[in-house]
Amino acid sequence: MSIEKNHDYNAEALELHKKYGGKLETNGKVALSNKDDLAIAYSPGVGAVSIAIGDAYKSAGISGGEAAARDYTLKRNTVAIISDGSAILGLGNLGSYAAIPVMEGKAAILKSFAGVDAFPICIDTQDTEEIIKIIKNIAPVFGGINLEDIAAPRCFEIEERLRAELNIPVMHDDQWGAATVALTALINSLKLADKKPEQVRVVISGVGAAGVATARLLNSYGVKNIIYVDSKGIINKNRDDSKSLTKEKIELLNNSNINNYADFFVEENKFEIVSGDLSDAVKGTDVFIGLSKPNVLTEEMIKSMNDRPIIFALANPTPEIMPEQAKEAGAYIIATGRSDYSNQINNSLVFPGFWRGVLDAQYAGTYKKIELEIFVKIAVELAYHVSDLSVEKILPDMFDKTCVDIVARAVRG
Amino acid sequence: MSIEKNHDYNAEALELHKKYGGKLETNGKVALSNKDDLAIAYSPGVGAVSIAIGDAYKSAGISGGEAAARDYTLKRNTVAIISDGSAILGLGNLGSYAAIPVMEGKAAILKSFAGVDAFPICIDTQDTEEIIKIIKNIAPVFGGINLEDIAAPRCFEIEERLRAELNIPVMHDDQWGAATVALTALINSLKLADKKPEQVRVVISGVGAAGVATARLLNSYGVKNIIYVDSKGIINKNRDDSKSLTKEKIELLNNSNINNYADFFVEENKFEIVSGDLSDAVKGTDVFIGLSKPNVLTEEMIKSMNDRPIIFALANPTPEIMPEQAKEAGAYIIATGRSDYSNQINNSLVFPGFWRGVLDAQYAGTYKKIELEIFVKIAVELAYHVSDLSVEKILPDMFDKTCVDIVARAVRG
Repeated sequence: MSIEKNHDYNAEALELHKKYGGKLETNGKVALSNKDDLAIAYSPGVGAVSIAIGDAYKSAGISGGEAAARDYTLKRNTVAIISDGSAILGLGNLGSYAAIPVMEGKAAILKSFAGVDAFPICIDTQDTEEIIKIIKNIAPVFGGINLEDIAAPRCFEIEERLRAELNIPVMHDDQWGAATVALTALINSLKLADKKPEQVRVVISGVGAAGVATARLLNSYGVKNIIYVDSKGIINKNRDDSKSLTKEKIELLNNSNINNYADFFVEENKFEIVSGDLSDAVKGTDVFIGLSKPNVLTEEMIKSMNDRPIIFALANPTPEIMPEQAKEAGAYIIATGRSDYSNQINNSLVFPGFWRGVLDAQYAGTYKKIELEIFVKIAVELAYHVSDLSVEKILPDMFDKTCVDIVARAVRG
Repeated sequence: MSIEKNHDYNAEALELHKKYGGKLETNGKVALSNKDDLAIAYSPGVGAVSIAIGDAYKSAGISGGEAAARDYTLKRNTVAIISDGSAILGLGNLGSYAAIPVMEGKAAILKSFAGVDAFPICIDTQDTEEIIKIIKNIAPVFGGINLEDIAAPRCFEIEERLRAELNIPVMHDDQWGAATVALTALINSLKLADKKPEQVRVVISGVGAAGVATARLLNSYGVKNIIYVDSKGIINKNRDDSKSLTKEKIELLNNSNINNYADFFVEENKFEIVSGDLSDAVKGTDVFIGLSKPNVLTEEMIKSMNDRPIIFALANPTPEIMPEQAKEAGAYIIATGRSDYSNQINNSLVFPGFWRGVLDAQYAGTYKKIELEIFVKIAVELAYHVSDLSVEKILPDMFDKTCVDIVARAVRG
């Protein structure tokens, strides 16, 4: 199952980055080789373009300015990849400078996979209000804002506020990219295991950015029996800190049939209360989704799960359990975030096509505000696209170029 | 003297911008065609790069983080082109959206002329403190900040503050680019007219961003007899508004032998007081430098100047006087900002090589803080480079690739 590994990726990455000075460059799209070229692409001709955009803004407000900027500038095809460096990959808060190579890589992937121009912006403050203000103020040149590697719960407020206060779409990829691919994987896993979304019992370990978004998508897809586990164990209303839970955690509990937070629910099964640690949580469940920490899931825990247990161990780079061990313990399906094993849950399956679809729809004038249902739709389409489905192949190939089209079409509607 | 003009630049510019969706794109510099490529350029390999940068920041502070980011990321070769849209070309305050095509053009020129990657940032506020804060907070990915089309006097404070508060170089090109080319043109014009910098009498009409910087460079080169004219006429200490002049205007008067603002100067010629309007100012002068408004200089005014008058009419796109008229009135040399006449004073001669030199010096670890003298040095070198000097050819050819090297070398020191 493990793909042969002949690489020291860390050493090769350091060498490659040093050799090229990063991974992204900017290029002109038009000739600039004589005075006429300059007079058209720059002064004086460019003045007519500025006047056209300025006039559109004056007569039709910000959406007029935006439409004109899409007509005449890089805004048509350009997305910002923005981080404050507070949650870089699985490495934690390394700051804005350390975020650069990750954002740059993301930008390079967007161009290579989907023809989307993208530029990294690494913000040197971790103050929520400052971040929001800065992004709003640098929005003019961009067609969309891809947030990245921003710690929870700050990431929720930043995304929500920007979606309300900006005209252009805003997507925190650590939430929606990861969650959409996880749902894709789950749809196909349930198909193979012959289980139904309404019936399966799921544990989600880790209720940060990706955990919350994954839960929201699962809810929307019809998965309602979910037990949530964070660093303090199973979350329920009897826990000491139940009064100080984040609003996202309360929302998730209230959308689950298990450990529901509101007393006023009358349906009996909503009163099921489960407590304890991760080993208590996984007992008798069908699906484990880990977006938490290395090595927290043991073979014994998998053995305590229902028949044909489905394990998504997505902590990166070291998963909650290594695939060999999971299989050994009886996992029916094991997926990780790693490229060196089969069933890699990698958000590169989604974000390139997502932005391609958004930018196309914006330019065509058919763009509709991004809602959660879009991501469910993407997951359903991507899951359907896997024709050679097997326990070792629950996801489309990341380099299958038709995936970009499938995702973009789902977004364009 | 006029270069044949077969173009409607405005119409062609609108068409070109619409066809291509602007002029700038981003591209990956490394292959991303299989899982190994991704594992090196992105996760998990990129994590080692983030850690290396994060560690450098932790152990050596911001300059450590910056040096590591230059080693491993696009920071090594990337400049931000930043505007608030408050003074776009000669068109005024059209706002941040209207600024995009100009900044994009500038970025495309930087790559085409000097191999420098550049990205436009258009800021949607015109509040000085906000602009400063935003630029400081998005600085991590950039090797330098090129300010552009920001109105005076705000531009002076923004540049000064950012130079003090950021490690990376900051250059407002409307000031220094234009001023450096104007000084280049003046050096060669004086050579041709056989006049000396210390002896010539100069009028500068327009004391905005470019006017102030040009005056500062002229002072540094030894030109001390300068009369300044703004929208209210000749600036002197007897004028009604003399108590509310900007600090830049007071500085310029105090560095001139004419209309000196300080009473305590004892050298007799510093007490020369000239007053009135532009026609009073130009009488008996050798050089007119206009960075002001279309058509303010008349043929009669040129006739009132000294022998072999030198006229730089740099208002754009319509100069203070059209070249045909200036020649008719006896101008010995006439230069404008226009590409369709000879002697175009265009800052594209300077900023590409300037940023090339800065980035090279930064990466080599030999970068020294940008001081005014650098621009004087660039002007001297560029002026010297014109081997076929004549009244129709006072500047190097903008497409002469050796200019970039000459400027970069002057900057690198």
